[in-house]
Amino acid sequence: MSLSSRDQRSIEAFDAELAARHVEGMWNLAAPPSAEPKKSLLPCLWKWSEIERDLEHAGEVVDLGPKEERRVLRLVNPGMQGRRATTHTLQMSYQLVKPGEIARAHRHTIAAIRFVVKGTGAFTTVDGTKLAMSPGDLILTPSWMFHDHGNDTDEPVVWIDGLDSPLVSYLGVGFFEHFPQDRQPVRKASEVFNEHSLLLRPVASGSAQPSLLKYPWQATLDALHARQGDAGSPFDGVLLEYSNPATGGHTFPTLSCCVQMLRAGEKTQAHRHTSGAAYHVVRGQGTSFVGPAELAWEPGDCFVIPPWYSHEHINRSSTSDAILFSISDSPILEALGLLRTEPCKSEHMTI
Amino acid sequence: MSLSSRDQRSIEAFDAELAARHVEGMWNLAAPPSAEPKKSLLPCLWKWSEIERDLEHAGEVVDLGPKEERRVLRLVNPGMQGRRATTHTLQMSYQLVKPGEIARAHRHTIAAIRFVVKGTGAFTTVDGTKLAMSPGDLILTPSWMFHDHGNDTDEPVVWIDGLDSPLVSYLGVGFFEHFPQDRQPVRKASEVFNEHSLLLRPVASGSAQPSLLKYPWQATLDALHARQGDAGSPFDGVLLEYSNPATGGHTFPTLSCCVQMLRAGEKTQAHRHTSGAAYHVVRGQGTSFVGPAELAWEPGDCFVIPPWYSHEHINRSSTSDAILFSISDSPILEALGLLRTEPCKSEHMTI
Amino acid sequence: MSLSSRDQRSIEAFDAELAARHVEGMWNLAAPPSAEPKKSLLPCLWKWSEIERDLEHAGEVVDLGPKEERRVLRLVNPGMQGRRATTHTLQMSYQLVKPGEIARAHRHTIAAIRFVVKGTGAFTTVDGTKLAMSPGDLILTPSWMFHDHGNDTDEPVVWIDGLDSPLVSYLGVGFFEHFPQDRQPVRKASEVFNEHSLLLRPVASGSAQPSLLKYPWQATLDALHARQGDAGSPFDGVLLEYSNPATGGHTFPTLSCCVQMLRAGEKTQAHRHTSGAAYHVVRGQGTSFVGPAELAWEPGDCFVIPPWYSHEHINRSSTSDAILFSISDSPILEALGLLRTEPCKSEHMTI
Amino acid sequence: MSLSSRDQRSIEAFDAELAARHVEGMWNLAAPPSAEPKKSLLPCLWKWSEIERDLEHAGEVVDLGPKEERRVLRLVNPGMQGRRATTHTLQMSYQLVKPGEIARAHRHTIAAIRFVVKGTGAFTTVDGTKLAMSPGDLILTPSWMFHDHGNDTDEPVVWIDGLDSPLVSYLGVGFFEHFPQDRQPVRKASEVFNEHSLLLRPVASGSAQPSLLKYPWQATLDALHARQGDAGSPFDGVLLEYSNPATGGHTFPTLSCCVQMLRAGEKTQAHRHTSGAAYHVVRGQGTSFVGPAELAWEPGDCFVIPPWYSHEHINRSSTSDAILFSISDSPILEALGLLRTEPCKSEHMTI
Repeated sequence: MSLSSRDQRSIEAFDAELAARHVEGMWNLAAPPSAEPKKSLLPCLWKWSEIERDLEHAGEVVDLGPKEERRVLRLVNPGMQGRRATTHTLQMSYQLVKPGEIARAHRHTIAAIRFVVKGTGAFTTVDGTKLAMSPGDLILTPSWMFHDHGNDTDEPVVWIDGLDSPLVSYLGVGFFEHFPQDRQPVRKASEVFNEHSLLLRPVASGSAQPSLLKYPWQATLDALHARQGDAGSPFDGVLLEYSNPATGGHTFPTLSCCVQMLRAGEKTQAHRHTSGAAYHVVRGQGTSFVGPAELAWEPGDCFVIPPWYSHEHINRSSTSDAILFSISDSPILEALGLLRTEPCKSEHMTI
Repeated sequence: MSLSSRDQRSIEAFDAELAARHVEGMWNLAAPPSAEPKKSLLPCLWKWSEIERDLEHAGEVVDLGPKEERRVLRLVNPGMQGRRATTHTLQMSYQLVKPGEIARAHRHTIAAIRFVVKGTGAFTTVDGTKLAMSPGDLILTPSWMFHDHGNDTDEPVVWIDGLDSPLVSYLGVGFFEHFPQDRQPVRKASEVFNEHSLLLRPVASGSAQPSLLKYPWQATLDALHARQGDAGSPFDGVLLEYSNPATGGHTFPTLSCCVQMLRAGEKTQAHRHTSGAAYHVVRGQGTSFVGPAELAWEPGDCFVIPPWYSHEHINRSSTSDAILFSISDSPILEALGLLRTEPCKSEHMTI
Repeated sequence: MSLSSRDQRSIEAFDAELAARHVEGMWNLAAPPSAEPKKSLLPCLWKWSEIERDLEHAGEVVDLGPKEERRVLRLVNPGMQGRRATTHTLQMSYQLVKPGEIARAHRHTIAAIRFVVKGTGAFTTVDGTKLAMSPGDLILTPSWMFHDHGNDTDEPVVWIDGLDSPLVSYLGVGFFEHFPQDRQPVRKASEVFNEHSLLLRPVASGSAQPSLLKYPWQATLDALHARQGDAGSPFDGVLLEYSNPATGGHTFPTLSCCVQMLRAGEKTQAHRHTSGAAYHVVRGQGTSFVGPAELAWEPGDCFVIPPWYSHEHINRSSTSDAILFSISDSPILEALGLLRTEPCKSEHMTI
Repeated sequence: MSLSSRDQRSIEAFDAELAARHVEGMWNLAAPPSAEPKKSLLPCLWKWSEIERDLEHAGEVVDLGPKEERRVLRLVNPGMQGRRATTHTLQMSYQLVKPGEIARAHRHTIAAIRFVVKGTGAFTTVDGTKLAMSPGDLILTPSWMFHDHGNDTDEPVVWIDGLDSPLVSYLGVGFFEHFPQDRQPVRKASEVFNEHSLLLRPVASGSAQPSLLKYPWQATLDALHARQGDAGSPFDGVLLEYSNPATGGHTFPTLSCCVQMLRAGEKTQAHRHTSGAAYHVVRGQGTSFVGPAELAWEPGDCFVIPPWYSHEHINRSSTSDAILFSISDSPILEALGLLRTEPCKSEHMTI
């Protein structure tokens, strides 16, 4: 916005006067709006080989007692300004629970998921339903449901946490409550309330609909393998969403969980979208080109694809499938009418 | 509508003249509209002890060969005028499939369900998914999906058919198609596409969403028992709907399947609604008072509660649960804004 | 279904025995299901030149007094079996209200519309809102809303009634209630509750959302003219639906009102659908080919296009637009997942 | 999170090492989560008497030419950290357009509204529809629709801008595009596409649904006055939302516009919600108690009620109504399952 022949000094004095009254003149805009979103978030990869060492170290230096809360390594996007999170809406972290430890019962408006990386025998109790956790299982703790974790075996357990905490923080809706005891009483048999029988739902009564709280790994693997021969998505291979049977829609209103299989040698085409996602590598070796970055991944790694970055994936093995788990904020953009998706040119010469 | 001082004869002549041109004067109305729906359908009970004999007889006199279609006993409401069906919208029937028989593959806009009464080892293949059928299992064949049935064992199998055929006939939308072969090739493993893995759904691709096609009896029983201690509905005891995980809604857009448990000695209150339902008794002995009728039922029986009849149920056993399976047209009335439900006075003095 | 070598007589005896118990063996089916719906309804045209005379006659021979109800000529499909209505779901009729007459206040679950044919100065009061009626205006009386009509001028008024009464009758949900007085007190200014201000809706209160009750003819005409240059639908020309601003959806859950403009000389392509519609000609001269029937229409005429009949329209004028108003049951078929639409071959050689 | 007997220094060294790899240990949390959201935003009032002077001054020192963009005074919440906006999701501003000026045509994913404060004769053209602007009119420019403003009269015009720009910025979805010319060609008559005729919508065609773009002040006033005698909301008096007739829902997916009338002497009860709102005073004198702040307002003033602040309103006049216009982010919180509303204790002793 040009000020043509006016006295620049009087503008500055005016601006100062306005600022004192909590007003800002829009002529101060340095530049016209850009045609596309400015991308401050950055693609980034975290190596399991390093994280595993960090978790061991954390297990040594940090005690998790009955009174303490979580032992968590949070993945921080190097492009975040002011806030520390994996993207502006999502938080992905690794959590270690050692034998005998309890992560005490509480609830919060933040919705969370756990995807088990390593170790069998931990549990999460959600709203009175106790769920055993094995590698590859996805456990949900929907917004405002009480949950506690524990490890009753003699093996350490590591899982991925996925949360919408940066969104909840941005919106200023962070409510939190401790359960009266450290552990919830187990009231419901998980094998009933997390199986087929969940699909039989109470009619016309005050009782709340039970939620699906666990997607066991074997079912996930079966679903992927059953699609092995499908064409799949040109951008994502076989891409499946963990859908909510109570609505037929996304995993949560704020967060979608997906699993995808890149078949041996599969190489996807480049596209981009206004949603962002954080990935965890379950199986296989591959490379994801995210904007100008080349992210070579292995099992246990995590990486992030920020909004509006072109991206494409390659399974580098010619014999084995690769499997990626991811969380995305696409439900938010969809609900607000702000989701854009488009094929785009690859930014890579080297592929 | 009174014609006051006019010449009645000239009206009659006028009416005749109009009728020839496919017009009708509304002054011909004999009576003012009634405040409530006229109830032409009647409550009715069909005894398994008789039906079982009929099925045996039908098995002897009617051959079901590779070229023939179904062997079915249809329950016909004695109050139906013109049409023969269980209610104006619903058809409930018993079907017998003998060892070695095939009910050949076809599809139709009519949506159908099967609820297995007796015999293990029959199968239904729906859209390429082969589903084993055991007593208490609910098998769905949604509108326009290919399906065929067979019995490869040496035991006769009986199931209940539930269809929306009277509605489809009324609406004049009955499409029908044979599959090129008698039996569909089995393309999909039922254990994958009818289990938890069904809840992982393809994102952004041309492939259709898989449908849930089978609710196994054990899961149904688990769901009921998990609710044993609930207050339940004062009108229906523990009443659960078989929900569709692809929408979170009713079993079909035209038909809802429910199962309900009347606990030992439970006696429900009277209510009525504009939807109608047909019932099948899975377990227990009881009595349903439907309008002025007293229907005493046992396992294997079927009965019908037509729209707007007051009804209440009693489990006559003081020690065992009773379990009823039912199909209802409530989704139709709900979608069209015509569902009314209200508690009402019992019409029974004798209870 | 063949009975092979069995004794036909024993089957007949068995059938008789079953019938006594309200059971029917399905082997009695005379023929396999047809691939497409059987079309019992027939295309039909009613000429205004005849109807106008009939209405005059009806005005003479039938008195409508304070105690009497409506003076209505109902259009009866010659193909309806058992019931008398325009289609299986819809009733279209002409109604005459003479100066000084009152059609007393009542309500019913039947939803109704009025489309004014002739005469200015009648009114309908719906839920306390008094609405003036001029030619071309569409007035709604949604399900279960009190309404009364009157004519305070010295000119007879004719309008088209459109109702879902055959559907309501089929479903057995016909509730009816008189208002305590012949005429409702007028509580609300129609100019407020039927204008833009209707779009400002109460938040978080017990007061019901007001409904849009009148679409004035001038607005309809403006909407058509604004689309004059559009490509429109190849099957229907410029086809507009009267949408419900409270939902963004159809006029009623059971009935859709549309208006369409066939531009000078416009000739549409043939298609068919499982919904049926009844038409009223507002302006112009044309021909509609409906299955094998050729219906030549003029202003004031009504005609019916039953489900699944191929149909195409011709505006026979090379200089003037033709305008058709219609009611359709498409919302029912859509809600129940039974709407099919497809282009098809014309059945006419002579076009 | 206590570190019990561990060496604090080794933790610090570990943290530093993690930070270098974009990882953060969650044991660094200074405090447990708070039970309720921390409220960083502050209640604030902007006086029209001051703003009017500022606008005059801005009109003198800032030239808006054919090549320049907008002349806007933005209201900046004193509690915003890092960003400058009215709330974390909403921007409210005053805009001045002088005679002969043009605010050139562009579009953006940001959705915007204008509420006219002063001056008759400006216009906004949205998607080819030219809309005249008079005091009290609400003009919408939905996401990604081209719009330009102008003032062809000899009177300066002031309006309120309401935008979801802080949300769009947070989500990183800010797309922007100039129209090829400064002013869009006017293709559509506003009186057609913004009136009743808008409710007649194209069926089955490629043409997009027209949007409602203007709510004229007289209609708003009529709607308020028609509700004068209603009980209204105990927290808001007569509160009406500008609803979207294409969906029956909120004004935009991201922003709701409301108008409310506090009747003479009306005093509302305290409540709070997780949505935030910015207000503009149209008529009357009153006081709003927002948390600990007492905001005394007059016509032309603006003020903000941040999320989760208790608030209550008083109309200080015993003879005249007060009217408030407001924008709220409640649709966002509702869509994401994060809207909480509750009555609460007043924080004011002095009322």
